[in-house]
Amino acid sequence: MKISARNTLKGTVKEIKEGVVNNEITIQLAGGQEIISIITQTSSNALGLKLGKAVTAVIKASNVMVAVED
Amino acid sequence: MKISARNTLKGTVKEIKEGVVNNEITIQLAGGQEIISIITQTSSNALGLKLGKAVTAVIKASNVMVAVED
Amino acid sequence: MKISARNTLKGTVKEIKEGVVNNEITIQLAGGQEIISIITQTSSNALGLKLGKAVTAVIKASNVMVAVED
Amino acid sequence: MKISARNTLKGTVKEIKEGVVNNEITIQLAGGQEIISIITQTSSNALGLKLGKAVTAVIKASNVMVAVED
Amino acid sequence: MKISARNTLKGTVKEIKEGVVNNEITIQLAGGQEIISIITQTSSNALGLKLGKAVTAVIKASNVMVAVED
Amino acid sequence: MKISARNTLKGTVKEIKEGVVNNEITIQLAGGQEIISIITQTSSNALGLKLGKAVTAVIKASNVMVAVED
Repeated sequence: MKISARNTLKGTVKEIKEGVVNNEITIQLAGGQEIISIITQTSSNALGLKLGKAVTAVIKASNVMVAVED
Repeated sequence: MKISARNTLKGTVKEIKEGVVNNEITIQLAGGQEIISIITQTSSNALGLKLGKAVTAVIKASNVMVAVED
Repeated sequence: MKISARNTLKGTVKEIKEGVVNNEITIQLAGGQEIISIITQTSSNALGLKLGKAVTAVIKASNVMVAVED
Repeated sequence: MKISARNTLKGTVKEIKEGVVNNEITIQLAGGQEIISIITQTSSNALGLKLGKAVTAVIKASNVMVAVED
Repeated sequence: MKISARNTLKGTVKEIKEGVVNNEITIQLAGGQEIISIITQTSSNALGLKLGKAVTAVIKASNVMVAVED
Repeated sequence: MKISARNTLKGTVKEIKEGVVNNEITIQLAGGQEIISIITQTSSNALGLKLGKAVTAVIKASNVMVAVED
């Protein structure tokens, strides 16, 4: 599957914080940076997410903001 | 200002594609990766975006999806 | 690739309205219903979207609202 | 009320998974397909959501992605 | 229609900037504050938006961030 | 930091409903209106949110819908 979302960042699962409906996934990128994602627990389980698993963070361009120093 | 959005990625503006209402901003990250952002042209101008300017991509965690290989 | 987004709806491209930065894609679902998507023109081209092409609309669950009659 | 969101899909509530802050609503569409929505528990209660209730899934076009087979 | 989105702000249309696919709508709130919305031109026309028209800005709670002073 | 998000509404924290992963923040605006935000508990803590604290609701324009009376 090829998706229209323009941003993909490869990493590995560093932490999973389980909620009741949603899980918070911390993804460790290659460069040391972390990305946090909130997905449903059902998705987290369906994807078989666990510590160390290789994953890709996917982000639609319209959801990316830009900030500059004042 | 400190914002609740969990994800911030530092880079520089690599390309600005101007539309009528929205601009598409390509941000070059330190590690060589690129991030694409769609913001209004008014914001793009208000932030003084131009090629080479240091910027930060800001993304709310609930807008980050996770993908795995089949 | 398997993605965390919970909602996928299969259809075919019925119409592409081209903007400068974004394209508006009308997807005809099997049941006769239509889904409208706004993606960048770059994505639209990269996916090779054209009339009649089989596509899947993908929507993160946190972006779905619920309405009821008054 | 008439809203700018371009996508509306009619169905009935098939399942409600209650969290602390958010609920996950499974909507059964007429054609047999399901749509998953995450809304606050407060909204879920305010709308009187319960199994079998007629509801409409509402999605802004800018939140719909498009995928194609590789 | 009653919708799950938790935030509604009443105002009037102050400005419409027309793009090719999207329009930028400036809404003047009662208290003098302005809200900017990006919707498709098709929606803008379908709702009959024009200067001075009474409208409501509608925002899903998961799309609201919180910022504090440093 | 100056951010591309076009909408900022100043207020004070009126209520914090704590979940496991996400918190629901009720912000009282100057004019008496309330804004509801869903952010991660980690963000809520990192920002030091508590009742009465001055905060700003921040919303990207592409996440604002427009509604009109029928």
